[in-house]
Amino acid sequence: MKKLLTLLFIALITCSLQAQTEKDAKMVRAIFDEALERGESYEMLRYLTKTIGGRLAGSPQAAAAVEWTRQKMMALGFDTVYLQPVMVPHWVRGEKEIGRIVNSKKMGSLEVKVTSLGNAVGTGPGGTVAEVVEVKDFQELAALGEAGVKGKIVFFNRPMDPKLIDTFGAYSGASSQRGSGPSEAAKYGAIGVVVRSLSSFQDDVLHTGSTNYALNIPKIPAVAITTNDADMLSGLLQDDPGLQFYFETSAQMLPDVLSYNVVGEIKGTEFPDEIIAVGGHLDSWDLSEGAHDDGAGCMQSIEVLRLFKAMNYQPKRTLRAVMFMNEENGLRGGREYAALAEQNNEKHIAAMESDRGGFLPIGFGISGTTAQQNQLFGWKELFEPFGIYQFKRGGGGADISPLRTQNVPLIGYIPDSQRYFKYHHTPIDNFEAVNQRELEMGAAAMASIIYLIDQYGL
Amino acid sequence: MKKLLTLLFIALITCSLQAQTEKDAKMVRAIFDEALERGESYEMLRYLTKTIGGRLAGSPQAAAAVEWTRQKMMALGFDTVYLQPVMVPHWVRGEKEIGRIVNSKKMGSLEVKVTSLGNAVGTGPGGTVAEVVEVKDFQELAALGEAGVKGKIVFFNRPMDPKLIDTFGAYSGASSQRGSGPSEAAKYGAIGVVVRSLSSFQDDVLHTGSTNYALNIPKIPAVAITTNDADMLSGLLQDDPGLQFYFETSAQMLPDVLSYNVVGEIKGTEFPDEIIAVGGHLDSWDLSEGAHDDGAGCMQSIEVLRLFKAMNYQPKRTLRAVMFMNEENGLRGGREYAALAEQNNEKHIAAMESDRGGFLPIGFGISGTTAQQNQLFGWKELFEPFGIYQFKRGGGGADISPLRTQNVPLIGYIPDSQRYFKYHHTPIDNFEAVNQRELEMGAAAMASIIYLIDQYGL
Repeated sequence: MKKLLTLLFIALITCSLQAQTEKDAKMVRAIFDEALERGESYEMLRYLTKTIGGRLAGSPQAAAAVEWTRQKMMALGFDTVYLQPVMVPHWVRGEKEIGRIVNSKKMGSLEVKVTSLGNAVGTGPGGTVAEVVEVKDFQELAALGEAGVKGKIVFFNRPMDPKLIDTFGAYSGASSQRGSGPSEAAKYGAIGVVVRSLSSFQDDVLHTGSTNYALNIPKIPAVAITTNDADMLSGLLQDDPGLQFYFETSAQMLPDVLSYNVVGEIKGTEFPDEIIAVGGHLDSWDLSEGAHDDGAGCMQSIEVLRLFKAMNYQPKRTLRAVMFMNEENGLRGGREYAALAEQNNEKHIAAMESDRGGFLPIGFGISGTTAQQNQLFGWKELFEPFGIYQFKRGGGGADISPLRTQNVPLIGYIPDSQRYFKYHHTPIDNFEAVNQRELEMGAAAMASIIYLIDQYGL
Repeated sequence: MKKLLTLLFIALITCSLQAQTEKDAKMVRAIFDEALERGESYEMLRYLTKTIGGRLAGSPQAAAAVEWTRQKMMALGFDTVYLQPVMVPHWVRGEKEIGRIVNSKKMGSLEVKVTSLGNAVGTGPGGTVAEVVEVKDFQELAALGEAGVKGKIVFFNRPMDPKLIDTFGAYSGASSQRGSGPSEAAKYGAIGVVVRSLSSFQDDVLHTGSTNYALNIPKIPAVAITTNDADMLSGLLQDDPGLQFYFETSAQMLPDVLSYNVVGEIKGTEFPDEIIAVGGHLDSWDLSEGAHDDGAGCMQSIEVLRLFKAMNYQPKRTLRAVMFMNEENGLRGGREYAALAEQNNEKHIAAMESDRGGFLPIGFGISGTTAQQNQLFGWKELFEPFGIYQFKRGGGGADISPLRTQNVPLIGYIPDSQRYFKYHHTPIDNFEAVNQRELEMGAAAMASIIYLIDQYGL
């Protein structure tokens, strides 16, 4: 009898689990259907990019994006929409950006497109001119030492490794030259820095991005050049080690200004104190409309909540769409969000970020306990019909990373990465570079994970 | 002792299989490295699209593409390069394509972009003008019958289903209106046809494509309009059932002309009589440069053989890159290739086609015996590091399909399909729409399967 009861119990559990999986599969399918048939992420992105445009922290466009997303989330009928004030750096590029090889034996004087790195100082109207010394990394730089570097322009020319299928890995392998290159070069007395654009492609596109000056090291001006020009410059230097480069920029860092994170909520019906956050960063570089980076992630995050409203799904937990401010050159919004969460004793049961472009969804990465990771991996088969297969340990996003100290499990939305570093921080990261179906499928994938966490916790 | 020997034998086999898998994994990795570091598919595609351009069968550009790919494969040092003569249809669009709503109560007279379907007759200089009757499918058309259709223009307005993740499924569900719509409408006395563009997107882009007139049915002119205009026309028709549409086209079918398939070979060292073919179609529609459809597949096929040469890999079997002619509006090249193979008693152990665009590789489909399919599926794990996960039963390609009667296993290369029907048969299927890394990874994926078949047979 006892055996029979046990068997019956097992049978009931199995049936119930099966029914649950079927219910979840139906819900995930319904989320994708809603996104693909009546999704609004693409039209929202059109407004953000085409009408508002590039949104560097502290700019009027960033302020417009704050106000528009606030109004948009109100109009979509979210339960609560509010701003979190945060002081942000106010860096401006200025108007002039001139680059020139001045004395090539082969080419004479030759204009070269340059773009100042973000947060960098400008050269002032006199420009910076000096001989160029090329290095691949900080080891080569250190080997040259002050004798080889002082008074010169250091040219960092380490390409992203094309062999890496995850192009973010290739980016990580090359990005220190932009982030720390200027201060590293200044340590040895360099007076300026030229960096090879961080691109997966050989082309004529400039990639900006922030540099971080180290304390107590002279701040020297720094510009990026295109990958094609980097190869050309490198080639010329081989025949012509006395080659000089001139560049002029008028960038400057102004006093901090007040800006905001924008938060929209749907209140949970059963566990309103348990928060599931999903976000992207509202700021972007100034060179383009900031479509993939990160207009896409912001609009997808709003779309996640809109999808639930459109489907009349009432979440058990409180869902939050968060537009973080100033990821690109300060991360002030992400830090402030985490600080407020701690101050207000908020309980985040998960935070997700979309900041890898509006490309084809392929998976999710999660930083958390092994149990939390395994729970996420258990949902993998629900995503197979949609070509989403990569569920991996580790991941998150810059803006949500400050929540880690509060032990919040962090989930990074992973789209395919092959095309990202064509557009990242360039003048061509515009609305036209985003494909509607890819953007919508991404939003649906994100909403599906949020739905599962809302149902079962994490 | 016997037991021991058996165990030893099993251990040896296991070790040998493991070593084999490791060797294969290394080779696949090396193929991807070569394609991503020194691949030539992208630059070849640039020449084919930018210098030669659109290549409709029978056009001077198609002839140029034949001669250039012949020279290119010679220059790459393939063992044999030759042409297979084939007579192809010679359809020309002519210069004039005019569309107009003539008497909308709301809009008055209104220009509408149109493009003739391929193979369609023109209206002649007088144009075609009539009331418009809208239908979704042939059932609705039949229900209207002659009474509702005679003397009118039939407007086929069935959208592609956005919910289908495989957009080729959505295409199949909508394409009969373009392929058979004109003859179906003519059966009931229609004098012209307007078709909603076969697109996954709501936009202002025209999609052409071939129509096939049935025997003994009057040939009536037929044009496509954009998805946005299809919605507008449909909306106007609701208020204004007497609405008339005018269109003028000057398309015509000229006598067949001589063209060619282009074949390049690397001779097998062990089994030279066993052929593994890989190809795409060299012809394209005339509206664009034919980059995704199917310049990409052609250049990838040449690249497959180039990769092996660059890596000094000597195939056991004979590898063939085939540029098929006239897939778009006749399939004459594919039929001739199969006929010649039969006539010459050639033994194809496999044929692969790439004709779904130069997008991110996600898998392969195979038509063949269950054993052949399972063998292919057994290689799946070799592709996991590259995000290639979809190995499925069924697949191939239009050009290789005539080989089916010779029991050749047919393999279709499957890239992601989300973006394909934005470009397919449009004026925007140009070089700029192709991403270099996606194209290269596709060529590497194709080469890897070809390598495995070359090693182990199929």
